[in-house]
Amino acid sequence: MAHVTKREQPQVRDLNLVRTFREVRAGSGSTTTELVRATGLSRPSINSLVSELTDLGWVVAVEPVPNGQGGRPPQRFRFHAETGRLLGIDIGVHRVSAVLTDLAGTVLAGHELALEPAAPPAERLARLDVVVEVVLAAADVTPDAVWSVAAAVTGPVDAHGRTSMVSPLPSWAEVDLVGHLGRRFTCPVQVENDVKVALLAEHEWGVVRGARDVVYILAGLRTGAAALVNGRIVRGHGGAAGEIGALPAVRWLRALDGLQSHPGLPAELPESERAAWTFRRARQGDADARERVWQYARDLATGAAAVVLTLDPEVVVLGGGSTPWADLWGAEFSAMLSKSVVRMPRVLVSSLGGDHVARGAVRLAMGDVERRFFTDGVRPARRPVAGQGAERAQSG
Amino acid sequence: MAHVTKREQPQVRDLNLVRTFREVRAGSGSTTTELVRATGLSRPSINSLVSELTDLGWVVAVEPVPNGQGGRPPQRFRFHAETGRLLGIDIGVHRVSAVLTDLAGTVLAGHELALEPAAPPAERLARLDVVVEVVLAAADVTPDAVWSVAAAVTGPVDAHGRTSMVSPLPSWAEVDLVGHLGRRFTCPVQVENDVKVALLAEHEWGVVRGARDVVYILAGLRTGAAALVNGRIVRGHGGAAGEIGALPAVRWLRALDGLQSHPGLPAELPESERAAWTFRRARQGDADARERVWQYARDLATGAAAVVLTLDPEVVVLGGGSTPWADLWGAEFSAMLSKSVVRMPRVLVSSLGGDHVARGAVRLAMGDVERRFFTDGVRPARRPVAGQGAERAQSG
Repeated sequence: MAHVTKREQPQVRDLNLVRTFREVRAGSGSTTTELVRATGLSRPSINSLVSELTDLGWVVAVEPVPNGQGGRPPQRFRFHAETGRLLGIDIGVHRVSAVLTDLAGTVLAGHELALEPAAPPAERLARLDVVVEVVLAAADVTPDAVWSVAAAVTGPVDAHGRTSMVSPLPSWAEVDLVGHLGRRFTCPVQVENDVKVALLAEHEWGVVRGARDVVYILAGLRTGAAALVNGRIVRGHGGAAGEIGALPAVRWLRALDGLQSHPGLPAELPESERAAWTFRRARQGDADARERVWQYARDLATGAAAVVLTLDPEVVVLGGGSTPWADLWGAEFSAMLSKSVVRMPRVLVSSLGGDHVARGAVRLAMGDVERRFFTDGVRPARRPVAGQGAERAQSG
Repeated sequence: MAHVTKREQPQVRDLNLVRTFREVRAGSGSTTTELVRATGLSRPSINSLVSELTDLGWVVAVEPVPNGQGGRPPQRFRFHAETGRLLGIDIGVHRVSAVLTDLAGTVLAGHELALEPAAPPAERLARLDVVVEVVLAAADVTPDAVWSVAAAVTGPVDAHGRTSMVSPLPSWAEVDLVGHLGRRFTCPVQVENDVKVALLAEHEWGVVRGARDVVYILAGLRTGAAALVNGRIVRGHGGAAGEIGALPAVRWLRALDGLQSHPGLPAELPESERAAWTFRRARQGDADARERVWQYARDLATGAAAVVLTLDPEVVVLGGGSTPWADLWGAEFSAMLSKSVVRMPRVLVSSLGGDHVARGAVRLAMGDVERRFFTDGVRPARRPVAGQGAERAQSG
């Protein structure tokens, strides 16, 4: 049975290294005994693997907490999430925001700035730069401490990180966002569509953790859809998956029209606050406002039905700025959806806050770090450790 | 570096067994030298693994062909596809058909019988039984020689192989097709939606071999859609993915109406032949027929657009009984589609023949055998070998 060739042994060790790291990362602090049990590896193997993971900077010993019985508690190890930083950015029509997190996605700092919808790219990028500087300063880190950057933008994103097809951001098609961010950061930079990363956040931290087949409807100042099939975000061949709103019968490009044209709306109210005004009026019992809210729900459901009929998801998640009022329109949405589909999915409302898109971008950045760790030749390369700014100054 | 524990050695051998089998199966005949090169394993390992695969019945030595130079050519090994049989069944509104193949999907026998669309389940199942008997007899095998059976039916198929949601087959919702076939066959029986398996056939033998993101439009006596995302068929959570035709704006349930209501249609022509009549008239230059064909193309494109906007596929494949006339309507379909989508995919016409659904069912059965081989504990169980009917008679 000794068909293990020499060539395979390093691979087996690498696989065991990854397996052990996965176990450590999944928990809040694992003992050697627990890792032996979880992996089926021998105690000496685990000791050696944990030692290597510690040297690589991925795992750290937890400071022992006295157990009050005098005895020395067993040594615990945990994922060294603070060894690197991630930056998630959200570039929308009305605002730019960013969050800085550790490698586990725990938010350390966040900031946002408002924008005129008509702001040209240079102004939008200048605001972005300010937001980024503020979050880096707030977390007291240099750009070199960031291991991966991901930015979410409105509109379908092509393979080069550009919104070359269509975009509600003025003159945005030619903007090289990867290049712009690459001038500040040396780490990998990704750009992705905002609805897709909102679904990533929902799948990691929200109401559909672990689900395999999900349709996400972004119901906010923009209306959009994204889907998870077999546990993976559907990008499509060119990054344009989820753009069901472009179908004339779906009317999503004008979904907010009714909410933004209530005859009672104060003339001075900016466009971005009109829908919220109508929602509030509907909650107060205004019949016209209610009818507009219901029409909005039916328009959302028409587009959602096309996506649901195509994908037959387990669950539809409603997210975005209109969800705090979902008690007013969720039932109408579900009623219309159930009339249109072959099999009715569950409908859930997102529990994430207003930074869900930026946090979704962080999830994308986490994926980048994971990919480098878990699949680039299996064996992890040594990663930069926090506070390496000086090193870079030397090499740059 | 000796972190290979005892527990892992059998796994490594199993992985190598699978790797070697994959290499053998992929080619038409591999030598030991070629397998050493392809797998990176040692010559003694390959010899041992090929010997085990031969004992298991999965691999067979190719009869040497004299090379005319007097020398003995190196021994070649190939996948022993004829060690088992697969049965693919297509149960449609107008006919029932089946093909019997070897484990590589090579067709050995096929048969079909026509049906009245209104035929009750008992009659449809009786026809099916006849078709199955005919193909088994034509290939001279008993049911025990069949390793896996898959049947395609019209309508979404649930997790139990039933079309419990909707079906154009009269009274079909309660039919237990798995149970019915299970009374004849002891091997696993699968049931799947006909459009999804047509796409499987297209992906294995047709115009989209190896593609990752495909939308398939069935354009025949029934209109339907199916999709491949990241190389996998989208079933959806309940099996109802692809049912975009149910969306009122899409009108697919009535897509054939125009083709079947040309004022010149002979009154005696059965419904199933009316569309073909109109296509022929359009080809002869009849303006009314042409307009009906173009309307058909636009209706198909409206539904296709919803699916394409949702998934952004690399390619759309047109398959089914209307494709021999695709020269008349393909351009109109593409023109309408390109007006409606964000990124235009390539549009291809299927090259498979009328048995594409039954062959797609065979591909599903191949997947079942592969799954048993490749993932059930990695190490393959010994498979039944051809002509084992006597064995079964003893045990049964």
